[in-house]
Amino acid sequence: MRTQVCIIGGGPSGLLLAQLLHMKGVETVVLERQTRDYVLQRIRAGVLEWGSVAMMEEAGLGERMHREGFVHTGTYLSAQNRGFRIDFDGLIGKKVMVYGQTEVTRDLYTARDAMGGLIVHEAAGVQPHDLQTDAPYVTYTRDGTEHRIDCDFVVGCDGFHGVSRKSIPDTVLRTYERVYPFGWLGVLSETPPVDHELIYANHERGFALCSMRNDHLSRYYVQAPVDDPIEKWTDDAFWDELRRRIPAEAAERLITGPSIEKSIAPLRSFVAEPMRWGRLFLVGDAAHIVPPTGAKGLNLAFSDVHYLSRALIARFIEGEDEGIDRYSETALARVWKATRFSWWMTTMLHRFPDQTAFDQRIQETELAYLESSVAAQTALAENYVGLPF
Amino acid sequence: MRTQVCIIGGGPSGLLLAQLLHMKGVETVVLERQTRDYVLQRIRAGVLEWGSVAMMEEAGLGERMHREGFVHTGTYLSAQNRGFRIDFDGLIGKKVMVYGQTEVTRDLYTARDAMGGLIVHEAAGVQPHDLQTDAPYVTYTRDGTEHRIDCDFVVGCDGFHGVSRKSIPDTVLRTYERVYPFGWLGVLSETPPVDHELIYANHERGFALCSMRNDHLSRYYVQAPVDDPIEKWTDDAFWDELRRRIPAEAAERLITGPSIEKSIAPLRSFVAEPMRWGRLFLVGDAAHIVPPTGAKGLNLAFSDVHYLSRALIARFIEGEDEGIDRYSETALARVWKATRFSWWMTTMLHRFPDQTAFDQRIQETELAYLESSVAAQTALAENYVGLPF
Repeated sequence: MRTQVCIIGGGPSGLLLAQLLHMKGVETVVLERQTRDYVLQRIRAGVLEWGSVAMMEEAGLGERMHREGFVHTGTYLSAQNRGFRIDFDGLIGKKVMVYGQTEVTRDLYTARDAMGGLIVHEAAGVQPHDLQTDAPYVTYTRDGTEHRIDCDFVVGCDGFHGVSRKSIPDTVLRTYERVYPFGWLGVLSETPPVDHELIYANHERGFALCSMRNDHLSRYYVQAPVDDPIEKWTDDAFWDELRRRIPAEAAERLITGPSIEKSIAPLRSFVAEPMRWGRLFLVGDAAHIVPPTGAKGLNLAFSDVHYLSRALIARFIEGEDEGIDRYSETALARVWKATRFSWWMTTMLHRFPDQTAFDQRIQETELAYLESSVAAQTALAENYVGLPF
Repeated sequence: MRTQVCIIGGGPSGLLLAQLLHMKGVETVVLERQTRDYVLQRIRAGVLEWGSVAMMEEAGLGERMHREGFVHTGTYLSAQNRGFRIDFDGLIGKKVMVYGQTEVTRDLYTARDAMGGLIVHEAAGVQPHDLQTDAPYVTYTRDGTEHRIDCDFVVGCDGFHGVSRKSIPDTVLRTYERVYPFGWLGVLSETPPVDHELIYANHERGFALCSMRNDHLSRYYVQAPVDDPIEKWTDDAFWDELRRRIPAEAAERLITGPSIEKSIAPLRSFVAEPMRWGRLFLVGDAAHIVPPTGAKGLNLAFSDVHYLSRALIARFIEGEDEGIDRYSETALARVWKATRFSWWMTTMLHRFPDQTAFDQRIQETELAYLESSVAAQTALAENYVGLPF
């Protein structure tokens, strides 16, 4: 088989790239290791930057998102059980959209089906070849048969553990990493959210976050040791701990219920450079990971798709190479800024094992300063809703 | 002897407090351990916040400062040998004044002499007593004779090593501290400054700062191990290291010369709470220390004087106790914000011993974000020129 762009990975970034390229007449094939049902059931991020919302609209997928999503015009921060609000809309005239990654993926699959685009599921042993030549190709196995796709470009949207980044030689690839010494214990419960917006809480006992999927489905997190046995965290223990860390007035009106999902996730910052090697481009988690604080993961993958879709369209439609030649540099500048923001939110809000009383007061003062300063709030807001592309 | 306010410490904060109280008819005595010549020759900070400038004017000391001081409307930051400017005046309509602490102290002495105010120099063994009663007093020895000053209030302006903070029992005093794992190697040279404004430089080899006293007197610093023997740093070694770390275009036009002073200073953040205990008030370094990055030390002492002078005047003139009752809380709120800012500037700009490649990129990205964001620049500017009282 031959196509113009072979996309490895059928998650939201691979599918969005395929959709944007298709709309301009650029051919794609998407290879996905998992089944369609598996991909559609993954529970992931839930907050879209305003630029990501615009990309969904650009891809013709705004209708259901605007109908079912929840627009947030601000967020709460809290220190010592007292919260205050950052008014994104009032400060910079932008908002964010709570619309689960699961829903985004579903919309993208529906669109891909509607245009008759190819997604090969259960593609095993995917392997790109000849990436430094003008004739790269990708091989994979499905139902015991070996397949080959010849193409002009290969795009790795296959996540942190995927084959794409590993195809770049160690002599070329530079990596930057921080592993945070704690995890997020998350609970999903069929209860109304404690607030219609998010609450990010700093507390001497550790970070907590109140989030939601919709009016009847809440998502809460507390910072916990990443190797805690999950059995240690009964529902009661979780709710008690959450209540201790969030603003007092929120704790009072918190409605609890049985958890329908409970797990501990590690936190990591990771950036790989470059994001282009010959005919291979990396997108999203294949090149970079952020901790969940500030909800940048999916949005950063969409940011990469923004730059790469324009670059590939310019190449195929106008014969213009500047976009693809500058893709790595352009995408990485924004990747590092979001990596910095996620690192800062994480560092400001969490309890570190070696944290001193001085460090705790610095965190509380950072929040007190934020509460008092329009400039500091504006800086937070412009990062939270997403820096301009 | 009897007075209303006995001030321990004849540095700039003690003298400024004495001056402001005197102007409203409140009596003071200032006790100083050193000789007058010693105090007048100490070389310290050089940058006044705009609020500190206003306090000098309020004290009737604006004339020489405005004639001989240098107004800076911005400052330079640099990463990877490339600088950019933060335009304080353009962003928030405020400035800072380069006017050495030595000059400030000289002006304050002149004013104290003009009003016939008492400064007891070479006061040894100063000791406050009965601070929890309505009749506190201070004893000291001079020329072999024991003296006693009865007063209504005692103010400790006697620095980090002074007796005042130590008079507060350990059961009451809470302290917060960070010692930074590096020092500042500073050189004073009779050469024209490389720029008419300051340059704060982040570099993989460590921090550097280009500052000045006047058109013919430059003050430069490079981050260095605090236990480096000073003999290791020949003038040539210093200039070579400075050139490597600052913006390339600044390095090219740097004019070097023999050092007339060279020393290594440690960096520390320290806050003691409360700042009032009975009839004792702490001011400036007696209660808090900041690293020199961002030039907050003297300004923070003046901030304390701002609150305390008003509180004491309200007490003596209007019989109103609210100001003195709230002094500790009010002063500490601003102290912590300046402590946070100094910590942030220090952390963003210096090389730490355990710094990873990730950390270095985060620092560079913080500077790149600052360069690109009006909001982030405004937040830096409002802290640098001084948050409102």
